[in-house]
Amino acid sequence: MNTFGRLFRINIFGESHGKALGIVIDGCPAGIAIDTDGLVADLERRKPGAAGTTPRKEDDLPDIVSGVFNGKTTGAPITMLFENKNVRSADYDAIRDTPRPGHADFVLHEKFKGFNDYRGGGHSSGRLTLGLVAAGVIAKKILSPVSIEAKLTEAGGNKDIEAAIALAVEKQDSIGGIVSCKVMGLPAGLGEPFFDSVESVISHIVFAIPAIKGIEFGSGFAAANMHGSVHNDAIMDEKGTTETNNAGGINGGISNGNELCFNIAVKPASSTPQAQHTWNKSTKSMEAFQVKGRHDLCIALRVPVVAEAAAAIALADLLLIHNAYQP
Amino acid sequence: MNTFGRLFRINIFGESHGKALGIVIDGCPAGIAIDTDGLVADLERRKPGAAGTTPRKEDDLPDIVSGVFNGKTTGAPITMLFENKNVRSADYDAIRDTPRPGHADFVLHEKFKGFNDYRGGGHSSGRLTLGLVAAGVIAKKILSPVSIEAKLTEAGGNKDIEAAIALAVEKQDSIGGIVSCKVMGLPAGLGEPFFDSVESVISHIVFAIPAIKGIEFGSGFAAANMHGSVHNDAIMDEKGTTETNNAGGINGGISNGNELCFNIAVKPASSTPQAQHTWNKSTKSMEAFQVKGRHDLCIALRVPVVAEAAAAIALADLLLIHNAYQP
Amino acid sequence: MNTFGRLFRINIFGESHGKALGIVIDGCPAGIAIDTDGLVADLERRKPGAAGTTPRKEDDLPDIVSGVFNGKTTGAPITMLFENKNVRSADYDAIRDTPRPGHADFVLHEKFKGFNDYRGGGHSSGRLTLGLVAAGVIAKKILSPVSIEAKLTEAGGNKDIEAAIALAVEKQDSIGGIVSCKVMGLPAGLGEPFFDSVESVISHIVFAIPAIKGIEFGSGFAAANMHGSVHNDAIMDEKGTTETNNAGGINGGISNGNELCFNIAVKPASSTPQAQHTWNKSTKSMEAFQVKGRHDLCIALRVPVVAEAAAAIALADLLLIHNAYQP
Amino acid sequence: MNTFGRLFRINIFGESHGKALGIVIDGCPAGIAIDTDGLVADLERRKPGAAGTTPRKEDDLPDIVSGVFNGKTTGAPITMLFENKNVRSADYDAIRDTPRPGHADFVLHEKFKGFNDYRGGGHSSGRLTLGLVAAGVIAKKILSPVSIEAKLTEAGGNKDIEAAIALAVEKQDSIGGIVSCKVMGLPAGLGEPFFDSVESVISHIVFAIPAIKGIEFGSGFAAANMHGSVHNDAIMDEKGTTETNNAGGINGGISNGNELCFNIAVKPASSTPQAQHTWNKSTKSMEAFQVKGRHDLCIALRVPVVAEAAAAIALADLLLIHNAYQP
Repeated sequence: MNTFGRLFRINIFGESHGKALGIVIDGCPAGIAIDTDGLVADLERRKPGAAGTTPRKEDDLPDIVSGVFNGKTTGAPITMLFENKNVRSADYDAIRDTPRPGHADFVLHEKFKGFNDYRGGGHSSGRLTLGLVAAGVIAKKILSPVSIEAKLTEAGGNKDIEAAIALAVEKQDSIGGIVSCKVMGLPAGLGEPFFDSVESVISHIVFAIPAIKGIEFGSGFAAANMHGSVHNDAIMDEKGTTETNNAGGINGGISNGNELCFNIAVKPASSTPQAQHTWNKSTKSMEAFQVKGRHDLCIALRVPVVAEAAAAIALADLLLIHNAYQP
Repeated sequence: MNTFGRLFRINIFGESHGKALGIVIDGCPAGIAIDTDGLVADLERRKPGAAGTTPRKEDDLPDIVSGVFNGKTTGAPITMLFENKNVRSADYDAIRDTPRPGHADFVLHEKFKGFNDYRGGGHSSGRLTLGLVAAGVIAKKILSPVSIEAKLTEAGGNKDIEAAIALAVEKQDSIGGIVSCKVMGLPAGLGEPFFDSVESVISHIVFAIPAIKGIEFGSGFAAANMHGSVHNDAIMDEKGTTETNNAGGINGGISNGNELCFNIAVKPASSTPQAQHTWNKSTKSMEAFQVKGRHDLCIALRVPVVAEAAAAIALADLLLIHNAYQP
Repeated sequence: MNTFGRLFRINIFGESHGKALGIVIDGCPAGIAIDTDGLVADLERRKPGAAGTTPRKEDDLPDIVSGVFNGKTTGAPITMLFENKNVRSADYDAIRDTPRPGHADFVLHEKFKGFNDYRGGGHSSGRLTLGLVAAGVIAKKILSPVSIEAKLTEAGGNKDIEAAIALAVEKQDSIGGIVSCKVMGLPAGLGEPFFDSVESVISHIVFAIPAIKGIEFGSGFAAANMHGSVHNDAIMDEKGTTETNNAGGINGGISNGNELCFNIAVKPASSTPQAQHTWNKSTKSMEAFQVKGRHDLCIALRVPVVAEAAAAIALADLLLIHNAYQP
Repeated sequence: MNTFGRLFRINIFGESHGKALGIVIDGCPAGIAIDTDGLVADLERRKPGAAGTTPRKEDDLPDIVSGVFNGKTTGAPITMLFENKNVRSADYDAIRDTPRPGHADFVLHEKFKGFNDYRGGGHSSGRLTLGLVAAGVIAKKILSPVSIEAKLTEAGGNKDIEAAIALAVEKQDSIGGIVSCKVMGLPAGLGEPFFDSVESVISHIVFAIPAIKGIEFGSGFAAANMHGSVHNDAIMDEKGTTETNNAGGINGGISNGNELCFNIAVKPASSTPQAQHTWNKSTKSMEAFQVKGRHDLCIALRVPVVAEAAAAIALADLLLIHNAYQP
């Protein structure tokens, strides 16, 4: 399913090299002003173009087709389309025979019995995150004054990101990174004890972002190496403010009013310029393989704004559900 | 919501110190023999009693109330109840004034406006995972011959688990751990490109297990520090077998036929015997605090069978969905 | 699926002749006092025993297993069990060979490949509506001060219900009826323009009640025979009060603040004492057939309280969703 | 929510007088040839233009934006857009002050706090059923060789439809009608015992069609007036063929392999040329009111193809779910 959310519900669609891709946002409250500046700003942050990112030009302002009237949301489904221009389909013909390592080419062919649009990753392209980013801008407005901030804190194992990118460009080999996300001002009480825990819901949508390999909340994997006496966050006041924040703002799946924080691991882009090997379905042998075309060396650079959007969408949904139970 | 799944759907209920807790499993195929041995074996694995786990006796064989006839599933909802015996409610009266650090006491009170059953964690108790384990036994049969195996690979930062437990007992302080889970024999094609990626669905249910702080698939967080040329798994044959398995058996959210593997981080139990601090709502001041009663020093010991169940439940659901699209 | 609802969510389970049947109610607001009198009153209204209903004794007070603490809902899932006593399984052995006309015996066998619990209708028994009635009592409290009232307005084509029953008893043949339901005090704005229209959601749950053959809102089928100038309800004030109520309190799928009203058609019980014919799987021929045991001659007598419950459950869900969007 | 379905899932969006409207179809099997002729044929059947329907010209061929590659479905979401041309927004300015009787103007304003796009019914326009019809064409292909046929069997209380329309034109007053739908060749076993009964699921989507006031399956409302001995359908062979079909092809919520049949009641169009009365929010008084513009006198003429689509969508979803449980 290409849908996420219970009340604030999104549905993404489209392919990398089709006519257009986009998103339908259902269950959005009426009366929210469409924040064009915010939209442009977030879409710019997602854009390629920096060193380490693909030079493909994307002029990605969405065409708002429905759900907005006189600059405000109407309560009806909001549809935003992103046209696919500047597309070179010919680059991708070879994919049919030689599935790219690290990519979804092989599994998409299996799952969809060869009927999938294989050009450029097709529906599974990272380009689909355009819709997420656009929806995130609206979700952020629903959450306001809660604020969300994600940044790349490490690339290729290096906290000096610029140096890491420079090295990747020099080596002509893609690198991964760590994105850290913080949510400030979130009220206590969001999320549910088990299956709709804040962690469950955020991780669910975060793993929809291509190239994510792991997520940790608060102390995360380091918790495995800590004692309870150290890990527990002492509660300091009636608002539940804690001395430390190993919980990452969540206890028992429910937000506790402290800063919500999580880290995600981004793998190096599968489309590295380096030589690789894969199975050739035509020759029925394993062969050397090299991707062509324009690709990011560090896709992690583009992930923070998508991670913010993902968190915003998940939390906007939980906030609406929370509101349902307020007297 | 206390429900999970789209076709194979579970609903858990109950409280630690109420009459009973349990699970309803809806959408289970008819004709599956109830595997009593498997049920006993998995529930035993979840049981406390080992060094480092709580001495509270739990005689946890479920009462199967519905959905099973002549030893086989009928296709109707399966309800399994676990009675709560051997319960000492008096131990928990203090929770109302002094929310235990690391526990959900504070947030449950906020979320449910003081109406929550606060005894022993109430509905948020780890004891609710009994239902998950029982459902997992059925899910494993649906998945058969796919096999799932999770184990504790590290406790308190130590790969010698027994030594780690001994040290925790000596120090009288709880410790965390890492649980590794492998799924063997999973066919390619399960999961969806975005929101119902295998990672999304598994992480969703895994974060329903209390005390989980992080999850990573395949190379996981290490991927952030790797080059694409190293991370990519070369495809070696027409079945999609790969030379390495950094993908963890998943590409683009879809199973690729290789071993599915993930690690989860378990925090140290919040109920450590060590002195802590928390807010006293009655005296309106921060005070020293010590948990009483019987508690695990290393809850991670009990997590593997729950993690297996969680993975089995998620994958059984994805398998049924997959079946829907086979000709 | 045996679940209904988006926020106020129910899951029914059990079989007519198994250990117990019941319901899990998830997403119920915390702090609602369990209305034992209301529970007893509504369960009594559903009870057989009157002329025209089966003399089987049912002592149907639910065992509340979870989600209630100190007499109030906790916000956690509420589980209510109804034990099956006074069960005569032997009566139903013949069903395996000779599926009862009008009943689900044949389709259940087909759907569940013979693994279904065939005794007394098994999971498909009308007895499962006990859970609906119990959930309805809670839903009514959520809706308060909105009130719901359903009654049998016609039986066997006769508005004099007692006379109709007397005739059915005399003829020893089951009869159907019409149940009319009214909801007073419902605010405007509940429901959604298309798929979650008030009519969609109410009809969805009403058709879960066994023996329902039709539903109509407001003018209903009579509308097919009316002119627009007559059918349209003139709006008389700023609250949207209308002069007539052909809309049945709903425009474009959304409640308009006027009385919500709908009628449902109940078929005659399939278990009529009269001789019938069915296929005998064993002899492979069509044979005369007669049901045995204790059965209602006019199940429609027991439907009003179930219809009220169904409407209450659907509307409580819509009300919570509505609340989510209030500032 | 503007979504329907569990596996075959649709999401409709758009407004009558916005840029475009459309549908996203998620969960469609891969490899289904897009049936352009079927698409044209069904969209033509939905078109206005006949006597009794509005002369507004709609050139409604959808723009397929995603999910189709080389003429076949890919397994990814299918998005179809219908542009809104030939739109006269000025006609609808008065709606803001004087909500049209029978329309959703009043409730939409209430529900969406005045932010709704009020032009021509906005999102609640019957024009949104274009997406349903297009999705229906695909659903019919999934169901093949099952066939679905709906027709208008009565208009304004008259079985001679042409005469009824002529009279409505003469009187210049809108009329309602009855649409009968039959599904031939449906296998036994679709649907679930309670909440996802075939009746529940079909009625849910049918009541999403504007102007529907009632639905009945098989004997329907007439069942209320029948005896059990007459209503029960005798089973004649091992396939479950029945002598009569009062069940309408459904027992206990599950298809029984016989013809599925249902009737729906369509109200007269609210936009009748006759004088009416409504509340004027500006003058704060009840006033005479007359709709302007181009409108259908008998919208029931356009309903059959939409009803077919609705049934096809619901049944395609149930068929996929059914497939999930086949060995």
